[in-house]
Amino acid sequence: MNRAEIEQRIVSRPTAFVASADEAGYSCMKAMLAPRVREGLRVFYFTTDTHSMRVAQYRRNSRAGIYCCDEERFVGVMLCGEMETLTDAASREAVWRDGDTEYDPLGVDDPDDCVLRFTARGGRTYAGCQSENFTIE
Amino acid sequence: MNRAEIEQRIVSRPTAFVASADEAGYSCMKAMLAPRVREGLRVFYFTTDTHSMRVAQYRRNSRAGIYCCDEERFVGVMLCGEMETLTDAASREAVWRDGDTEYDPLGVDDPDDCVLRFTARGGRTYAGCQSENFTIE
Repeated sequence: MNRAEIEQRIVSRPTAFVASADEAGYSCMKAMLAPRVREGLRVFYFTTDTHSMRVAQYRRNSRAGIYCCDEERFVGVMLCGEMETLTDAASREAVWRDGDTEYDPLGVDDPDDCVLRFTARGGRTYAGCQSENFTIE
Repeated sequence: MNRAEIEQRIVSRPTAFVASADEAGYSCMKAMLAPRVREGLRVFYFTTDTHSMRVAQYRRNSRAGIYCCDEERFVGVMLCGEMETLTDAASREAVWRDGDTEYDPLGVDDPDDCVLRFTARGGRTYAGCQSENFTIE
C-alpha cells in the first residue's frame, strides 16, 4: 500500500484505536471516533474529555500509538508518536463541531473539552501476512 | 455490562487488538484473529509467528494490552496484563488447528509457530460515554 491508499482505505474510517501507557507501563487501548482534523499521516487531532483516564495518562507519558484498520480486508496501519493534550481556545475551536454540546454542554469553552494532538514519528503497515515499516517526514 | 455480557458480546468477536511496547516505550498495536483458546477474561492464547515483531517486543517487555470492541454499538473492553511467548510442543498443540499449515507449512512442530499467552491483571469496560474499571480474579 502507498500513502494515498493508506489514507483513503484505512485512516479515513470512522473509528481509530489509540493507546497510552499506564503508570506501570502497560499499554491501554480504546476505540475513538476518527480524528476531527488530520494532516496526512503525521498529525491527528481528536476530541476528548479533560477528566478522562487517557488525558491523565498522556500528561504523565506522551508516548502513544494509533491504529486504524479494515478488519474485513485484513489491512491496517500502526503509528507511534507523541500525544499532546491541548486545552487552549484555538485548539478547541479548530476541532469543535455543531452537536458537541451533547458532550460539552458549556460549548467550545467547556473546561471538560480537550484536544488530543498526535504527531507520528513512524509507522508500520499490515496487509494480509505482510508488514512493512515506514518513516514519517 | 456484566462479565457474561462482555464475553458474549465483545470478547467472542473475530478480531482482537493487541499492544506491546517498543524499545522506546511507544505502544504498538495490531489486529489479530480472535484468541484460539480463552479462559474467561483472564487467559487468552493467540497463535503467531516466532519471528514476528510482536514476539520480539514481548520477549523484551511482557507488559501488554488487549482490546476487543463492537464499534457499531460503542462497547469495548480493555485488558492489561502479561504476555508470554511459548514455543513448547504442548502449547503449540493446544492452539493448533487444521489449516494452520497454510502459515506454518511444517505443521505443529514448525519452528516459526509461536503461542502468545496473555494473562490479565485488570480491565476497563467502555459502553457509550461510560467506562468502569474491573479486577480479574
